[in-house]
Amino acid sequence: MFISDLSRRCDVPVPTIKFYLREGLLEPGRLRRGRRADYDESHVSRIYLIRTLTVMGRMSISAAREALQAIDDQGLQVNGLCDVVNEALFGQGPGLDGTPDGSETALRVDRFVDGLGWAVAPDSAGRRTLVQVFSALERLAGQADVTALRPYADLAARLARLETDMLPRSIDSPAQAGEAMATAVLLEVALSSLRRMAREHMTTSTEGLPSG
Amino acid sequence: MFISDLSRRCDVPVPTIKFYLREGLLEPGRLRRGRRADYDESHVSRIYLIRTLTVMGRMSISAAREALQAIDDQGLQVNGLCDVVNEALFGQGPGLDGTPDGSETALRVDRFVDGLGWAVAPDSAGRRTLVQVFSALERLAGQADVTALRPYADLAARLARLETDMLPRSIDSPAQAGEAMATAVLLEVALSSLRRMAREHMTTSTEGLPSG
Repeated sequence: MFISDLSRRCDVPVPTIKFYLREGLLEPGRLRRGRRADYDESHVSRIYLIRTLTVMGRMSISAAREALQAIDDQGLQVNGLCDVVNEALFGQGPGLDGTPDGSETALRVDRFVDGLGWAVAPDSAGRRTLVQVFSALERLAGQADVTALRPYADLAARLARLETDMLPRSIDSPAQAGEAMATAVLLEVALSSLRRMAREHMTTSTEGLPSG
Repeated sequence: MFISDLSRRCDVPVPTIKFYLREGLLEPGRLRRGRRADYDESHVSRIYLIRTLTVMGRMSISAAREALQAIDDQGLQVNGLCDVVNEALFGQGPGLDGTPDGSETALRVDRFVDGLGWAVAPDSAGRRTLVQVFSALERLAGQADVTALRPYADLAARLARLETDMLPRSIDSPAQAGEAMATAVLLEVALSSLRRMAREHMTTSTEGLPSG
């Protein structure tokens, strides 16, 4: 199909499609009779994926490009894919605002993570981020108890389990990786809208939500 | 204290503090002897808050400005504060990519939300977002079952409950609103780092995490 057909099919204006082509998010169509480019179903699903990342996921063009590159490079597995999605949606984790390793705070965070029974590398980015968070909480309140994060850790574990249940077990093609990434983005957006509604419910109802 | 003392105290370079002043994130110091500006403890805690929003939370300057304005305007309560933080961290929700109200999908989402027993306004942004997400999931997979989101809804309710447990019940001053906002941002960053670690654990351990 020509670019005008692709535009109608995906309900995306032609200039937007040309922008995706220029930005390298979309493969060029095959040149037919040496003049007009011809597009196929792979372009349709790629455009849906780009829309999911940039419109639903509100990724910047450069974040979407990185996410799409991870798909095109192949070899991406489900957990790596969730990390790519999280980095693209929420940034590469916080900047490091000066907390030396081996500090008292770092030791307490290490004990906390060990206590969860999780296999997490000593130099894991998540671990360093948690030290940062915890130092900032201490600075804010004078003191802070890392074990107060235990319920968050339990919910994080349940979310990680849900993610793997909703996504395919293994990824065998870029097309499948694209679908899995779109699903992961959409589930993040769903979670965030459900959290917003749960908060709305708690504000408007006197009883609040059942705890536990 | 002078700006150089403020810089040492907060471990933030003087040009960065001047940038915050120019961008209207930080109140000017009081002019002493008509020449040098004098800063106090309120400037110290404001700089810590700006750092938490922009460095830990990776908010853009304009997102941080909006969040700080919500604090300075006062009258902000805990649930509104969580919404401000979520919008600043994750954007204003997805753009609307064309799903008419009253569609079959919208009706199914409404039934799902009603089934949760949550009090959510008919025109709630969360509800509209969920219709978008669900339409996109349907387009992606040919069909999709909205009730598959039920476990996400349960976790969203628990997270909303945790948020209100960790934050003050009522907010009586801009200083308290600032602390509550910093706490809300830090807890979001903590959750995201715990999710990353939980995924790492699931990748490296053969047994995975306990489900349920």
